[in-house]
Amino acid sequence: MRNFNYQNKTELIFGKDTEAKVGQKLKGLAKKVLIHYGGGSVVASGLLDRIKDSLTEAQIEFIELGGVKPNPRVGLVREGVTLCKAEGVDFILAVGGGSVIDSAKAIGIGACYEGDVWDFFIQKAKVSNTLPVAVVLTIPAAGSESSTGCVITNEENDYKRSAGHPSMRPIFAILNPELTYTLPAYQTACGLVDMFAHVLERYFTNEPNVTLTDRLCEATLKTIAEQGLAVMATPNEYAGRAEIMWAGTIAHNGSLGVGRSEDWASHMIEHEISGIYDIAHGAGLAIVFPAWMQYVYQHDLGRFVQYAKNVWDIPTEGRTEESIALASIEATKRFFKKIGMPTTFEDANLPIDRLEEMADKAVENGPIGGFVKFERNAVLHILKIAAELK
Amino acid sequence: MRNFNYQNKTELIFGKDTEAKVGQKLKGLAKKVLIHYGGGSVVASGLLDRIKDSLTEAQIEFIELGGVKPNPRVGLVREGVTLCKAEGVDFILAVGGGSVIDSAKAIGIGACYEGDVWDFFIQKAKVSNTLPVAVVLTIPAAGSESSTGCVITNEENDYKRSAGHPSMRPIFAILNPELTYTLPAYQTACGLVDMFAHVLERYFTNEPNVTLTDRLCEATLKTIAEQGLAVMATPNEYAGRAEIMWAGTIAHNGSLGVGRSEDWASHMIEHEISGIYDIAHGAGLAIVFPAWMQYVYQHDLGRFVQYAKNVWDIPTEGRTEESIALASIEATKRFFKKIGMPTTFEDANLPIDRLEEMADKAVENGPIGGFVKFERNAVLHILKIAAELK
Repeated sequence: MRNFNYQNKTELIFGKDTEAKVGQKLKGLAKKVLIHYGGGSVVASGLLDRIKDSLTEAQIEFIELGGVKPNPRVGLVREGVTLCKAEGVDFILAVGGGSVIDSAKAIGIGACYEGDVWDFFIQKAKVSNTLPVAVVLTIPAAGSESSTGCVITNEENDYKRSAGHPSMRPIFAILNPELTYTLPAYQTACGLVDMFAHVLERYFTNEPNVTLTDRLCEATLKTIAEQGLAVMATPNEYAGRAEIMWAGTIAHNGSLGVGRSEDWASHMIEHEISGIYDIAHGAGLAIVFPAWMQYVYQHDLGRFVQYAKNVWDIPTEGRTEESIALASIEATKRFFKKIGMPTTFEDANLPIDRLEEMADKAVENGPIGGFVKFERNAVLHILKIAAELK
Repeated sequence: MRNFNYQNKTELIFGKDTEAKVGQKLKGLAKKVLIHYGGGSVVASGLLDRIKDSLTEAQIEFIELGGVKPNPRVGLVREGVTLCKAEGVDFILAVGGGSVIDSAKAIGIGACYEGDVWDFFIQKAKVSNTLPVAVVLTIPAAGSESSTGCVITNEENDYKRSAGHPSMRPIFAILNPELTYTLPAYQTACGLVDMFAHVLERYFTNEPNVTLTDRLCEATLKTIAEQGLAVMATPNEYAGRAEIMWAGTIAHNGSLGVGRSEDWASHMIEHEISGIYDIAHGAGLAIVFPAWMQYVYQHDLGRFVQYAKNVWDIPTEGRTEESIALASIEATKRFFKKIGMPTTFEDANLPIDRLEEMADKAVENGPIGGFVKFERNAVLHILKIAAELK
């Protein structure tokens, strides 16, 4: 196990009707709040009105900025930054899923900075400070509700890049599983893949002697796979929705990665796909991860066998390590397919004529991946597997 | 799953040589520190001197109070409170295991209170404030390094009672597994039982649909059982010591109990034993827990079967639920015995003539236990099982 520091200050307020507490929670923390959201469902469901009522009741001043899209754009972030500076906003409340939270986090750091907020995403500036952000979560997926980072897309050049800092963990996050009943099946499924991938990125490590975190990862993966099928089948049942919402937070709060190297190549390759084609991040991950596994499994057959046994209950007797490893990749794919996710470019109706460009961009800042390190050609190889050209 | 709030602000600094950072960590947080410790090993090993050097180097003023014993006494706590008030101490650094940390936490709340600190332990006063506490951990066991509570013994009347408040979570905890190499085998084993019991108290719940936390509990229990045997066999190996140190923190940081009712009857019964006989808390738990299991297993056979399968890999085919449940209790006992722990009063050379008194005291504030609720006679029954009178 490696040396590590771990601290997660986010207060998690989990359960039924918890969004009604938001005004009270903000008391003493905020004078003027920017409520940040997407559009459609948060408005139509009446959630936004309930949030506003709660703030009004607690006598907290607020302004609004809606319009966040999946793969949140730096354009809207810049608008939010200008708004916060002009209006003297001292707190941002994100009402939505990972895209809204990430957009709010980016506005938070931008509002404390003189230059252009994109600087943080291209290593031209380092985050040191942010406006505080809190969350009312409506999509369990990104884990952004208690994580240190955010991912933003620059619509001018199709770059999708991340920034992070411990100060960016939200102050509190309200997690009410009931708010997720009405999520479209496709979005639920994208969320499942996203949280599953967050654990996989940590699980595939070269660090020996990380038994406890291995087991905690396996516990979380197994629960996502099992309860994921349950929520797809019965979207209005509290039990499964609650398990999945909690799993999404655990998957990305950092605790599963302590003391071990992590990978993250699949996320970086996926960012190139959704940066260009604007598909959902979870769908992109469902395409990339099986291809990544296919490419790397021989690097550590033992770990894939462990994954097969402990996550997928794949029988091992009388089989070679290689066949068990391959079966675990098949099981991963099968899970993604069962919940309606694409696992190839074709499944997602994506063209396959810009693979080289994606490979170039993925390694622009150097090789990627902690489990196996990739130069450009390896990335291209993985993209070709996903495009069924290999 | 129940509604819950979870927040754990403690910064965990884990790994080799991390105690050297303590002075730097305290900079800006503390003006005058009380270093609180036990005696023997912390002094003899040179750890205390290294800590003092680190504080001196960081130009942080400090005073010292040693002498904490296992089952820490309110007498020394009162001494610490007086000292803090007289000397204007604004920060307490606990260097030791759970007893030292608990004593430090009690001093912390006492120093912010006008009355007698014992008031907090007999519900005469409620904690609302504390001096900040930080930890250099030397015994993985109690999980007090990131928990909200402490347990103190009143030597005047043999009462062992707890107090707790979110503000009592330590500011930071330094966890260097190397510091635990020299722990006597008996203390290592007591620690293993203590952390194992912290998970069991949460695992045995009546709350349905807590799949993820169940699995996280099982992952932690399995790791303690497996790596516990490893550290007993090879006490100087970093890998196992690190797993156990991290498991002890996870077991009691509160995350494994979210959304579910917990039990804690075994802890309360054990407090009556160690309150009177001053045996190690872990040893007391090794005596009580199997007896508790024996008494309650029929309340929820299914949960004991799950425990048998997922923690102890007990084969279930062709066996009744009852026989599987009983096998899980045997496996628990066998683990405790293997690491040298007593599982009966006789094993621990304890007399059995004060069982009635213990049963009386255990339920003084009403029935105990969340999984099965106990009145006095049930507690007595469990004590009699442990005393081999039933």
